[in-house]
Amino acid sequence: MSDVARLAGVSIKTVSRVVNDEPAVHPKTAERVLAAIEQLGFRRNLGARNLRRGSTGTIGLIVEDVGNPFYSELNRAVERIATAHDRHVLTGSCGEDTERERELVYEFSSRRVDGMLVVPAGDRHGYLLPEMRAGTPMVFVDRPPGDIVADTVLVDNFGGTVQAVRHLARHGHRRIAFLGDRPDVFTATERLRGFREGCLQAGLRYDERLAVLRTPTLESVTDVVNRLLRGPKRATAVIAGNNRVAVHLLRALAHVTPRPAVVGFDDFELADLLNVTVIAHDVGRLGEAAAELLFGRIHGDDSAPRKVVLPVHLAPRGSGEVAP
Amino acid sequence: MSDVARLAGVSIKTVSRVVNDEPAVHPKTAERVLAAIEQLGFRRNLGARNLRRGSTGTIGLIVEDVGNPFYSELNRAVERIATAHDRHVLTGSCGEDTERERELVYEFSSRRVDGMLVVPAGDRHGYLLPEMRAGTPMVFVDRPPGDIVADTVLVDNFGGTVQAVRHLARHGHRRIAFLGDRPDVFTATERLRGFREGCLQAGLRYDERLAVLRTPTLESVTDVVNRLLRGPKRATAVIAGNNRVAVHLLRALAHVTPRPAVVGFDDFELADLLNVTVIAHDVGRLGEAAAELLFGRIHGDDSAPRKVVLPVHLAPRGSGEVAP
Repeated sequence: MSDVARLAGVSIKTVSRVVNDEPAVHPKTAERVLAAIEQLGFRRNLGARNLRRGSTGTIGLIVEDVGNPFYSELNRAVERIATAHDRHVLTGSCGEDTERERELVYEFSSRRVDGMLVVPAGDRHGYLLPEMRAGTPMVFVDRPPGDIVADTVLVDNFGGTVQAVRHLARHGHRRIAFLGDRPDVFTATERLRGFREGCLQAGLRYDERLAVLRTPTLESVTDVVNRLLRGPKRATAVIAGNNRVAVHLLRALAHVTPRPAVVGFDDFELADLLNVTVIAHDVGRLGEAAAELLFGRIHGDDSAPRKVVLPVHLAPRGSGEVAP
Repeated sequence: MSDVARLAGVSIKTVSRVVNDEPAVHPKTAERVLAAIEQLGFRRNLGARNLRRGSTGTIGLIVEDVGNPFYSELNRAVERIATAHDRHVLTGSCGEDTERERELVYEFSSRRVDGMLVVPAGDRHGYLLPEMRAGTPMVFVDRPPGDIVADTVLVDNFGGTVQAVRHLARHGHRRIAFLGDRPDVFTATERLRGFREGCLQAGLRYDERLAVLRTPTLESVTDVVNRLLRGPKRATAVIAGNNRVAVHLLRALAHVTPRPAVVGFDDFELADLLNVTVIAHDVGRLGEAAAELLFGRIHGDDSAPRKVVLPVHLAPRGSGEVAP
């Protein structure tokens, strides 16, 4: 730093102010300091800087599965915001396992992350209160926490599914099936709630045999297709409750005729080429909104916890616009 | 620890040995200690353990884009191995920017990761030598480093593309186009090399106008489709040089007739439903092999740097098995 100060013709204190982005430095002076830094190839000592500001320079992101394209898009958006705030992202997959979620929170916490973004697996989060009181901000993404009040960013699961049912009903469908993720996944039960409300609004009888919540695998989805979407009493349309269900459903339906109408919740890559109508939302926006909220907290925003619900929209592409 | 020792009826030293996975503890004794830990809900102090073993409990993973499904699958595999070794994964996207790659390496290095997995953007890596000499193992994934010798795990880019050309030639194609990523991306130039060799082996004239290397965007790919795959002198088949090129190519070809034969390099989700023939390889295996090599180094393996080349295979699904 003294070399930089000498080259720029300023005091060491001024160099320090510029490096730490403190105010009260004339722009011209700051420019000269930055040029001197550039010229000397001065590399900030991150460890020292982090110690000084009491930060490890990392935030934690806990999702169900970093390999699921939905979460990798979320990860990319979070990384974008984190980079702008000079932070790195520690990621972990909890695989819908509440024990694993808790382990990851403790691990990240013991690594002193500056904050955490959590797509929670479980619905009990009292265990987080000590970490939160100790000053680690937490923002819940895509699903709310169970038994505590905390910042949460969601999409309109309920409204989107109501819209899907009404869309299919407008195209003449009276028997619509809903195939969602496990019943302990918040988005699955919210979308199921939207499904029931949509049936009500469209004047359809809600038939609980047509609503199935299960871990989406090719096997489980194929089984439901065989039970509900074939034979004389079959449903003529189906709503896929998330991107994983949709992908398995497309495979399971590959050789089924007549083919039911399909609307998926969540957009996914190549859905357009496969003509799949979806309830779309911007996963990038979801990640950005959550990360921005988190950095607001890290920078001292201590207002009451917020709940943000992002809008969704129907993208008609063919599969949802066929008559029974 | 003293509570655990008392409950298990062993010394504190023995508890420490079990917790740190050191040898020289009788299995029966270890079992008793683990049961006592379980019973008392003893949570290891990670910070202390890491300080003791000189580890931060993290490894770094630098890829082009954490949002690209290829890299998210890689990320998942690396996470799986890292978890088994009790480590977390710091990820960063460098977006084919050599400056950003270098920044991420320095950042991860200043965070004292135990090792790094790098999908390099650039071809100059002399700057890594000080970090490597300081004892941070590095393994290069999917692309080799530029001007140093280091552990590298690749797939058979050359052989796979030779196979693709021969496959198309067997189906009667004489004019085959190759559309790859930027010429400074190793996999792009290796696959182009395979393309030339494939033409030679199949007895085709290599026409350099049919080989285009560019950053894959919908615009750039559409432009190439319009120039090379339409009109009377068009190529009748095309090889997509990676998963990004393939996805854009499918969109660009959506309304093109007659449709050229297509073979992609890299498998991708839903390629089966879109009947896309690909040169497939196991991205999960790539990530696992690289991570296992890295942990071998972290655990003290100081043998000569290794180069591992994983096999690929042709998965025929329709798009590559049509006549001109």
